[in-house]
Amino acid sequence: MRKMALAAVLLGTAASMMPASANDALTKLSQDPNQWAMPTGDYANTRYSKLDQINAGNVAKIAPAWTFSTGVLRGHEGGPLVIGDVMYVHTPFPNIVYALDLKNDGKILWKYEPKQDPNVIPVMCCDTVYRGVAYADGQIFHHQADTTLVALDAKTGKVNWSIVNGDPKKGETNTATVMVVKDKVLVGISGGEYGVRGSMTAYDTKSGKQVWRAFSTGPDAEMLVDPEKTTEHGKPIGKDSSLKSWQGDQWKIGGGTTWGWFSYDATTNLVYYGTGNPSTWNPKQRPGDNKWSMTIFARDADTGMAKWAYQMTPHDEWDFDGVNEMILVDQDFAGQPRKLLVHFDRNGFAYTMDRVSGELLLAEKYDPAVNWATKVDMDKASPTYGRPQVVAQYSTEKQGEDVNTKGVCPAALGSKDQQPAAFSPKTGLFYVPTNHTCMDYEPFKVSYTAGQPYIGATLSMFPAPGGDHMGNFIAWDARTGKIAWSNKEAFSVWSGALATAGDVVFYGTLEGYLKAVDAKTGKELYKFKTPSGIIGNVNTYMHGGRQYVAVLSGVGGWAGIGLAAGLSEPTAGLGAVGGYAALSNYTALGGQLTVFALPQQ
Amino acid sequence: MRKMALAAVLLGTAASMMPASANDALTKLSQDPNQWAMPTGDYANTRYSKLDQINAGNVAKIAPAWTFSTGVLRGHEGGPLVIGDVMYVHTPFPNIVYALDLKNDGKILWKYEPKQDPNVIPVMCCDTVYRGVAYADGQIFHHQADTTLVALDAKTGKVNWSIVNGDPKKGETNTATVMVVKDKVLVGISGGEYGVRGSMTAYDTKSGKQVWRAFSTGPDAEMLVDPEKTTEHGKPIGKDSSLKSWQGDQWKIGGGTTWGWFSYDATTNLVYYGTGNPSTWNPKQRPGDNKWSMTIFARDADTGMAKWAYQMTPHDEWDFDGVNEMILVDQDFAGQPRKLLVHFDRNGFAYTMDRVSGELLLAEKYDPAVNWATKVDMDKASPTYGRPQVVAQYSTEKQGEDVNTKGVCPAALGSKDQQPAAFSPKTGLFYVPTNHTCMDYEPFKVSYTAGQPYIGATLSMFPAPGGDHMGNFIAWDARTGKIAWSNKEAFSVWSGALATAGDVVFYGTLEGYLKAVDAKTGKELYKFKTPSGIIGNVNTYMHGGRQYVAVLSGVGGWAGIGLAAGLSEPTAGLGAVGGYAALSNYTALGGQLTVFALPQQ
Repeated sequence: MRKMALAAVLLGTAASMMPASANDALTKLSQDPNQWAMPTGDYANTRYSKLDQINAGNVAKIAPAWTFSTGVLRGHEGGPLVIGDVMYVHTPFPNIVYALDLKNDGKILWKYEPKQDPNVIPVMCCDTVYRGVAYADGQIFHHQADTTLVALDAKTGKVNWSIVNGDPKKGETNTATVMVVKDKVLVGISGGEYGVRGSMTAYDTKSGKQVWRAFSTGPDAEMLVDPEKTTEHGKPIGKDSSLKSWQGDQWKIGGGTTWGWFSYDATTNLVYYGTGNPSTWNPKQRPGDNKWSMTIFARDADTGMAKWAYQMTPHDEWDFDGVNEMILVDQDFAGQPRKLLVHFDRNGFAYTMDRVSGELLLAEKYDPAVNWATKVDMDKASPTYGRPQVVAQYSTEKQGEDVNTKGVCPAALGSKDQQPAAFSPKTGLFYVPTNHTCMDYEPFKVSYTAGQPYIGATLSMFPAPGGDHMGNFIAWDARTGKIAWSNKEAFSVWSGALATAGDVVFYGTLEGYLKAVDAKTGKELYKFKTPSGIIGNVNTYMHGGRQYVAVLSGVGGWAGIGLAAGLSEPTAGLGAVGGYAALSNYTALGGQLTVFALPQQ
Repeated sequence: MRKMALAAVLLGTAASMMPASANDALTKLSQDPNQWAMPTGDYANTRYSKLDQINAGNVAKIAPAWTFSTGVLRGHEGGPLVIGDVMYVHTPFPNIVYALDLKNDGKILWKYEPKQDPNVIPVMCCDTVYRGVAYADGQIFHHQADTTLVALDAKTGKVNWSIVNGDPKKGETNTATVMVVKDKVLVGISGGEYGVRGSMTAYDTKSGKQVWRAFSTGPDAEMLVDPEKTTEHGKPIGKDSSLKSWQGDQWKIGGGTTWGWFSYDATTNLVYYGTGNPSTWNPKQRPGDNKWSMTIFARDADTGMAKWAYQMTPHDEWDFDGVNEMILVDQDFAGQPRKLLVHFDRNGFAYTMDRVSGELLLAEKYDPAVNWATKVDMDKASPTYGRPQVVAQYSTEKQGEDVNTKGVCPAALGSKDQQPAAFSPKTGLFYVPTNHTCMDYEPFKVSYTAGQPYIGATLSMFPAPGGDHMGNFIAWDARTGKIAWSNKEAFSVWSGALATAGDVVFYGTLEGYLKAVDAKTGKELYKFKTPSGIIGNVNTYMHGGRQYVAVLSGVGGWAGIGLAAGLSEPTAGLGAVGGYAALSNYTALGGQLTVFALPQQ
């Protein structure tokens, strides 16, 4: 009797005071267009907002409403969160987090600056970037460059708990954000250029205790795959799928890191993410398919067990990491309503898949410059079904070690890299920031030493032939595999897009412009030169009845590494400097938030 | 005959192709409201613009038009120049100069970054600030922290010539801008906290050859004073005026540095500037008046010879440098039209003088908190005529070495420091950014070692009693010595003001706001939170038919040194941290230009 009463009280309290789980609360927040509660906008990674106070008809009138300098230079990827009256802004290394008061032009409510060993900097592949913090249930989850994961009290910035996910001395670092799903925070790892063995780990949001960890390579049990139940193209992957695809113990230093964006679908309870390049970049040193590098994984959020996997680029020869975001949308495909997963891979192909079954529905080039493969084999009866058909001329393996394979398109940073695309359910189109670049790639033999670069190739990058530009901002139809419209950009569009119900799409440029274009036509409606080049992701929120659009400036990232790190020469293994050197004619280092709105009168 | 023909040709060329001298051209540029040709706005240091497209009626509608990150953190004092289609922007150490294309949202036309020994940084007293470059006759004059003066081709950024004005190993550095008068560039020196002997030097603009140098202390010949013709209060200063005012050789390490703003009046051909504190800050160690520290000098621009001098704070006991700008205006005073010089001194007194004769017309406190002196003796018959009447309680000398003299107002950074005031001929008022702070000051014995700090006092600064604010922005009537209106500011107003024909006055705040107030009433008409705290000087110009208002953000300077240098404790000799610590709740380091305009529709 007493027990029942207590249960009733608890139930009543729970129902009135809090949602059933943190996930429900976060889901609710992410569905409230007044907030920007997740780095990805929502679990589906659509980066779409229902707000339309700013729209195609009036966006030309927006202007900065307030600004904030982060006090840190170099590349500012990611974007701020907005929860109620507070904006959470992060910086690249040293990974400062600011809580800013939206009621007071961004007054600093608290600041958290971790003490990190600066020796982590040289171990970070491609600038000291960081893609931001996550929020759930009163906590800010902050994944530092040194792989320390900290849970901060969102009100005070005080540390609730802190754990360490990896070891920078072995080249394990972090650049990615994390994602909270129910009572777990999902955490990836960087270091594919240091022979790091990739993994995805789930920690309990309240205690920081590890719940599950799924490696990208190795024994089935360590990968959390079931040889019989985990499928690729609808078929079980079988026993030792990874071990059989590597020579000897190479899988132990085989990459497949997980530094991209994560997605989650509550209806299937599946988490989606991609794995990075196999180590080293010299394909001769790692015969086999190198599973499960370059793979899209669909995993059960509670157990981590993989439901399906799809290796897009078996035996990578170009550093085409598969980590780009999976965008989860429900659209008709071939006349049928489908639960789709759309993914714009570094390798230049856009994939449309059934996210429940893992069925590959479409794979088309989203930059006509792509030349390393003719197509992805879509013949289900073919033994090479789902595999790219590699062009021998651009096979760096066939060309061989110490041979400079010329003119591979795209360049190693891909037709798209970390810069996330957006999707508008109103137009049914995806808005994709792209790179329009090619490369020369020369693999060489390299030996592994823990914590030392394990790259094994030199490369140089340059604009795709016949053009005078290094980027395009495109609208893509994932149902047809066609570009709806395409805007040329002088440099790679390294910033993340935002689509809104106002039929406006926003993105930033490496020169520093925030641009607003018509979602239907791509017509430029507005541009503003922010202090520094933009590689951050645009977001939007409502506060006090006014819609705001916010973006971080701060040139850098892989495309801007020359400027960010003060390099004047292409560097071995990075090589991004060449084509992007002209950036220094447009912008200088910075670290600023600019918040736009319509004028108040 | 041949000679005459040649002369005629030369004369013809000169008359048709260029003005009679560089000075005429610069004067013309400085009078063209479309340009902002001098750091000070004009030779008179009025910082007044005849532009009125932006005015009290519409300034509420302005918004940022474009922005630019300098790529440098720490304090950004000074402001950019605008010559035609080009804006010249400088940074603190490492003293980068950018030429930005106004036709193209600030695209970088050229960048000049000197190589300087970073050991100059610890020798810079109060942040690594720099108050900007000067322009004349196709050259940009750039005075680096290490005292190297470089003449750059304004079109290309190429070095035409370069000379060295001082020796950082002896503590000689630069933070000031320079001023070009005719064919000479006037160059001051910093280092009063290192026992530097102050001087003003004129270099030939074409060759960099030294033309004259006038020390602030020492033998008459080295000071370029004429014992009979150089006057103070209308009387010859007499032989060895400086030597007699020091004990022994102390004048050799006696300060009187010249790191403030310079003015010039073509009608009298006089250059005006002030000298800084005597060294050390411990008054016991330097008996005497310590001439000519703390002095306004009026010197012949061609020869450097002093016409008159006025020592405002004989035998300084509080570090009240006299370097603040001299504003040259023609107003009626006591019913008579006079050529006035108006000066807001660190010591808290505003001086109105006849700039031709050096006659002292008025000296009144411009902050009621000032308590170290009751008044300046205005009785011409008195033996202490023109001298402040020091209050014994606040005499750090009388209180003695190793005694903490409490509650001296203003604090060492003065009722105003480098932050320049503006003057509007329309209202007849001066617009003055002020500090509203007091200090505890404890002198101690210190011995001199070249290049080592030679400070001799510790101090702590705090808000003036009875108030909750550390700054005021005031309108001052120099004819009556009265405050017309006063706006409270939470922190010192460390930014320079701009007055315009639109009856708007602009200034920046340490929190980062650009503010526009009504010139007649002080009513706030507009504010915008720029990325970082503002210690730069607001300017305005016209380009393509549109009026722009520009300002550098970048918190720092003496008031912001705690934030700029990452200090968490008051430091000996600087002591600014205490009262300003709360700044970190509002802003973080930065270095950005924000350019405002009215919307275009």
